[in-house]
Amino acid sequence: MEHKGFTLWFTGLACSGKTVLADALAEDFKKRGMKVEQLDGDIVRKSLTSDLGFTQEDRNENIKRVTFVAKLLTRNGVAVLASFISPYNEIRAYSKTEIGDYILVYVKCPLEVCEKRDVKGMYAKARSGEINNFTGIDHPFEEPNDADIIVETDKQTIEESKQIIVDALEMMGYLP
Amino acid sequence: MEHKGFTLWFTGLACSGKTVLADALAEDFKKRGMKVEQLDGDIVRKSLTSDLGFTQEDRNENIKRVTFVAKLLTRNGVAVLASFISPYNEIRAYSKTEIGDYILVYVKCPLEVCEKRDVKGMYAKARSGEINNFTGIDHPFEEPNDADIIVETDKQTIEESKQIIVDALEMMGYLP
Repeated sequence: MEHKGFTLWFTGLACSGKTVLADALAEDFKKRGMKVEQLDGDIVRKSLTSDLGFTQEDRNENIKRVTFVAKLLTRNGVAVLASFISPYNEIRAYSKTEIGDYILVYVKCPLEVCEKRDVKGMYAKARSGEINNFTGIDHPFEEPNDADIIVETDKQTIEESKQIIVDALEMMGYLP
Repeated sequence: MEHKGFTLWFTGLACSGKTVLADALAEDFKKRGMKVEQLDGDIVRKSLTSDLGFTQEDRNENIKRVTFVAKLLTRNGVAVLASFISPYNEIRAYSKTEIGDYILVYVKCPLEVCEKRDVKGMYAKARSGEINNFTGIDHPFEEPNDADIIVETDKQTIEESKQIIVDALEMMGYLP
């Protein structure tokens, strides 16, 4: 089924629930017959960003490359689910300008809750100093002031957060 | 119009006519109502490969990133025209495996002819030693032994070469 392409950009701390939400939405979109691509660190690291670390410069370069891919997919009718911490307002603004049909979802969750989840044990490593430049610990996260959608994963179930996004996309006319 | 995606990958020396051919085919495909994206060095350098030079390692990394983009576009129904010198059999084989619907076009043209064209004055710079690792001068070009289509731009007009490619794609069932 042909539909208008768009990029749903998830920003938020590690373990805030970005990828879990993207997974749930991808399934929903596919059931609607839409073309879907997911982009996140795990997916792009091998082929697109293997040389990059976690300094501000590297993070921005990471987002630049992903934005290029999302832009091309979006203008060819794909629903792109991009899950990246993407902690800076400036680079998120860049992605928005480049991609055009860009919907910013702020996956809001207090640091303490994210840190308790610590799915991959990264917060523990950041606290012990084993890894550096970890967002929320020794690297800043700028809360977005221009999110199109905000979900709060400490207060909502994944299903509830998902429904908020689906409802918003339907209102915007992005879902067939 | 929905159609099967594919990547038409042009390999050949600088000034062999890769991009000119890709431009002509892009126009043809668009007239057919197809979704088209062009990828070449000028297009990807800003956003995707700004950090890369022309060593073998960097060239391979360049092709890896482009291949990732071409793969995603291809599986979403886009006709991708990728024009890269891509001088090694090994990395071309990688792209083919990754992309799947991949048609290799060898844009064949003798070095002497390419060097006479020298659109951007790069051959002159390579000869004078101002730039290094220039394919055909001080860097190898491995002729493909598995090209799906060969065009010879020193013997054919662009229109003739284009028609050879269009005929082949029609035979393969890629054109609507």
